[in-house]
Amino acid sequence: MAAVKSDIEIARAASKKPIQEIGAKLGIPSEHLLPYGHDKAKISAEFISSVQNNEDGKLILVTAINPTPAGEGKTTTTVGLGDGLNRIGKKAMVCLREPSLGPCFGVKGGAAGGGYAQIVPMEDINLHFTGDFHAITSAHNLLSAMIDNHIYWGNALEIDTRRVAWRRVMDMNDRALRQIVCSLGGVTNGFPREAGFDITVASEVMAILCLASDLKDLERRLGDIIIGYRRDKSAVYARDIKADGAMAVLLKDAMAPNLVQTLENNPAFVHGGPFANIAHGCNSVVATTTALKLADYVVTEAGFGADLGAEKFFDIKCRKAGLKPAAAVIVATIRAIKMNGGVKKDDLGAENVAAVKKGCANLGRHIENVKQFGVPAVVAINHFISDTDAEIEAVKAYVRSMGAEAIVCMHWAKGSEGTVELAERVVALAESGSAQFSPLYADEMPLFEKINTIVRRVYRGSEAIADKAVRDQLHQWEQAGYGNLPVCMAKTQYSFSTDPNLRGAPVDHVVPVREVRLAAGAGFIVAICGEIMTMPGLPKQPSSEKIFLNDAGYIEGLF
Amino acid sequence: MAAVKSDIEIARAASKKPIQEIGAKLGIPSEHLLPYGHDKAKISAEFISSVQNNEDGKLILVTAINPTPAGEGKTTTTVGLGDGLNRIGKKAMVCLREPSLGPCFGVKGGAAGGGYAQIVPMEDINLHFTGDFHAITSAHNLLSAMIDNHIYWGNALEIDTRRVAWRRVMDMNDRALRQIVCSLGGVTNGFPREAGFDITVASEVMAILCLASDLKDLERRLGDIIIGYRRDKSAVYARDIKADGAMAVLLKDAMAPNLVQTLENNPAFVHGGPFANIAHGCNSVVATTTALKLADYVVTEAGFGADLGAEKFFDIKCRKAGLKPAAAVIVATIRAIKMNGGVKKDDLGAENVAAVKKGCANLGRHIENVKQFGVPAVVAINHFISDTDAEIEAVKAYVRSMGAEAIVCMHWAKGSEGTVELAERVVALAESGSAQFSPLYADEMPLFEKINTIVRRVYRGSEAIADKAVRDQLHQWEQAGYGNLPVCMAKTQYSFSTDPNLRGAPVDHVVPVREVRLAAGAGFIVAICGEIMTMPGLPKQPSSEKIFLNDAGYIEGLF
Repeated sequence: MAAVKSDIEIARAASKKPIQEIGAKLGIPSEHLLPYGHDKAKISAEFISSVQNNEDGKLILVTAINPTPAGEGKTTTTVGLGDGLNRIGKKAMVCLREPSLGPCFGVKGGAAGGGYAQIVPMEDINLHFTGDFHAITSAHNLLSAMIDNHIYWGNALEIDTRRVAWRRVMDMNDRALRQIVCSLGGVTNGFPREAGFDITVASEVMAILCLASDLKDLERRLGDIIIGYRRDKSAVYARDIKADGAMAVLLKDAMAPNLVQTLENNPAFVHGGPFANIAHGCNSVVATTTALKLADYVVTEAGFGADLGAEKFFDIKCRKAGLKPAAAVIVATIRAIKMNGGVKKDDLGAENVAAVKKGCANLGRHIENVKQFGVPAVVAINHFISDTDAEIEAVKAYVRSMGAEAIVCMHWAKGSEGTVELAERVVALAESGSAQFSPLYADEMPLFEKINTIVRRVYRGSEAIADKAVRDQLHQWEQAGYGNLPVCMAKTQYSFSTDPNLRGAPVDHVVPVREVRLAAGAGFIVAICGEIMTMPGLPKQPSSEKIFLNDAGYIEGLF
Repeated sequence: MAAVKSDIEIARAASKKPIQEIGAKLGIPSEHLLPYGHDKAKISAEFISSVQNNEDGKLILVTAINPTPAGEGKTTTTVGLGDGLNRIGKKAMVCLREPSLGPCFGVKGGAAGGGYAQIVPMEDINLHFTGDFHAITSAHNLLSAMIDNHIYWGNALEIDTRRVAWRRVMDMNDRALRQIVCSLGGVTNGFPREAGFDITVASEVMAILCLASDLKDLERRLGDIIIGYRRDKSAVYARDIKADGAMAVLLKDAMAPNLVQTLENNPAFVHGGPFANIAHGCNSVVATTTALKLADYVVTEAGFGADLGAEKFFDIKCRKAGLKPAAAVIVATIRAIKMNGGVKKDDLGAENVAAVKKGCANLGRHIENVKQFGVPAVVAINHFISDTDAEIEAVKAYVRSMGAEAIVCMHWAKGSEGTVELAERVVALAESGSAQFSPLYADEMPLFEKINTIVRRVYRGSEAIADKAVRDQLHQWEQAGYGNLPVCMAKTQYSFSTDPNLRGAPVDHVVPVREVRLAAGAGFIVAICGEIMTMPGLPKQPSSEKIFLNDAGYIEGLF
């Protein structure tokens, strides 16, 4: 048996087509493709405008059970399904998030799929790509610099320096920047105050870029950003310090979706990448809505498990962009189901049908939840070589008992050949017209009730609890006109509860809302339940120590 | 008379050719051009390797008198001369530095030339361009994060946290970040220490990228960076924490020169942009040496006036890259000469031949200095509409008395038509074979003597002075094997002395060397004479307040 190739070896051996050929598959003339090298391109705003009257294709969401250290393969399945749909004769494309640069140098591998279900050029996609995240970093930090500059030159807006809400960002895992004191060193450097950095994907600018419908909407949302508060607690906006125009200028190119290809030369948009905890965790609205105008099937993914990712995809992205998903795929692996059934990572190699059966409770909960939104679901079992027939049959039987179907997928090893059955089932579901999408709660529902609705109906907790300060804050925002915003839950991705170790399908837990934040530009209220890290650190032996250019000039060690 | 068009209006009206056509003028096949949009491209490393046996063209340096608030137009003249050389039938191209993003939002206009002597696309060049500076920022800050991470996880290398020499960078004018305390907030965030940010162009990584001959040399230099010192003052290198490989990976694309075009569709490389005070202030060696393989004439510029810019170009860049300039152009304006002659900015409109004659001393000094390096010089008078015939004649007569020639150039208003005479004179100088370039001092000269040589022979001061700590530091470096490095002077650009208000041609001043720094990766010793700002601030009304996208999607207010 031949040695298993690494992701980067497979990606490097890909026979890529010129990006103009990939664009042509979608009917994009080459003058509307702004190339970045020979294998990446941005789509011009003019072209996007020109296709607005096309009929929409069908939108397929790929989501997953709660993540475990065993890995689920959501991105890989998204890519594999896209290729599978093309293989059975559908005009299909995938829409993915852009990976963040910082985590590449920590422990995380790439985020461009794996095995024979990848998007390429994977090195570029995982590093600077087309510069979108750098543009977001620049726009974010321009606003930061203008705030401290405003204070320095007399603070006409009377911003309370203890209440500056806008931090700085860097696309790097750098725990030393989480909490700093800035403006030290005397008069010429300003007024010392506490400050800090988040990683770029946690920037509200990222969420804004991913929710904005066009450049005008982008600029309006940037102006709506709350940068801080006065002593009387009234808000000061980015518009007040006249930063919105220059920020939009910095983001002009970043707003254009990026076209790349799968290993099987099918088109993929890779655009935007907001955090899936303090933001909504989906690729950009512009990319998804444009893809729907160009393809009959658009496969996209949401961050984390379905409790967080799919809920936000439905309640924030679909609600705001008017999207109506036709079907959902819930990705699971036998290994991850076993971990949800109580097996430790080191014991995953051994067959354990009982644990599989127990762990299926987690999967079942996600199936029920997706159906609550009126979206029909199918389960994709992302196959590992260690899976046994008995384990697979246990999952299939369980899923049948839930009124759905589980299909084994082998895209990692076989590409589209391994997803034909899944693709056919997705088409059947989507064309059945059974989808009746609606969000979980109405815009008009009071904010805390929205949180409670998610806690009860999605997390199956008994209730959300919050102290008076949090509830008062929500009331204040309602009075200020923000009551109609959706809620963005920030909670551990590992459990339906706020305890990351509570796997499976817990019930009746209490969900404490520690803090709430208003993302007035992005247009949601963040409810923070538990510790949320917005600036990661590097591990003891960061992967950056092993990354280098080999003698042929190729990148080694990135994955 | 028609209204004078702004730079951005002229640039926007340019009839640009596809970048493949521009590349073809240099014999670059389109598969070796990595396009960024339709009007920018990077040159592949393979192509650069393939032309190494070509004969070199002639290298022309454009430098200037000491800058004044009146403006000199060095970049504009570089572009105009390049176009002029093409106009008279020479195969010529220009090599410029990339502008920094941060200052665009302060007071500074663009840095892509002006009037009818510009490089395009000017908005892109002045903003994100091809992402080189973002890559440098990432590589720099990865090293920073790895240093604090190393300390966090036990500090096996025993770095003294008070002696971390490597700061962080951001391509933004943000005075609040000059001096900070980082790693606050408790155990999980590390060990609190003093730190700070410089602007990206001040990064040693920028200087390294601009001096490296190829990717291997780049990685070696990155490894040589001194990141800090132990309690016993021994140095710790970037190589010791294994950051060099990943940094090189981040800089892989940034090492490739960027091809754009002038308004007259002539090729231009725009690549690299180190500070002209704490670094050497020239575009990249890779761009210049590649250009020399592709064109018969390569026109390039150095930062600030000839005392700083040309001296470093000769003593650092040409010395290290083995370049032999064939001629130099010293740019002056009547207005700037008058300011050097004592006229205030508000009085520049009135004819003042006496002040012109007085101010010519500054110009004369630069002519003498350039000749000291064995490079023949011609003076370009960058014409303004307010210049009078008598003033121009006074400069011409003075320059003749110095054994050189001054030529009026009107490229700002007329493009290449306005530089034909200059181009012809440059060709005559270059083809005369009179150039006998040699650096000012030998590699073997002791470090402090190198500084003194520059002070005496270029600045015409009486001597450099420094306290014992500075001299001891230089001796230590000599003992550690760094004695053969050239010296990079960091001093005010406004005067031959260290007093920015001392215009003209002062003599016998003393030059105090306040501090010395070792840029072991870049390969020079920085001698800091006076206050040097490595992180600018924004003015009271930053230009970012007036920058926005208009209804047609064009950028307004950038220039």
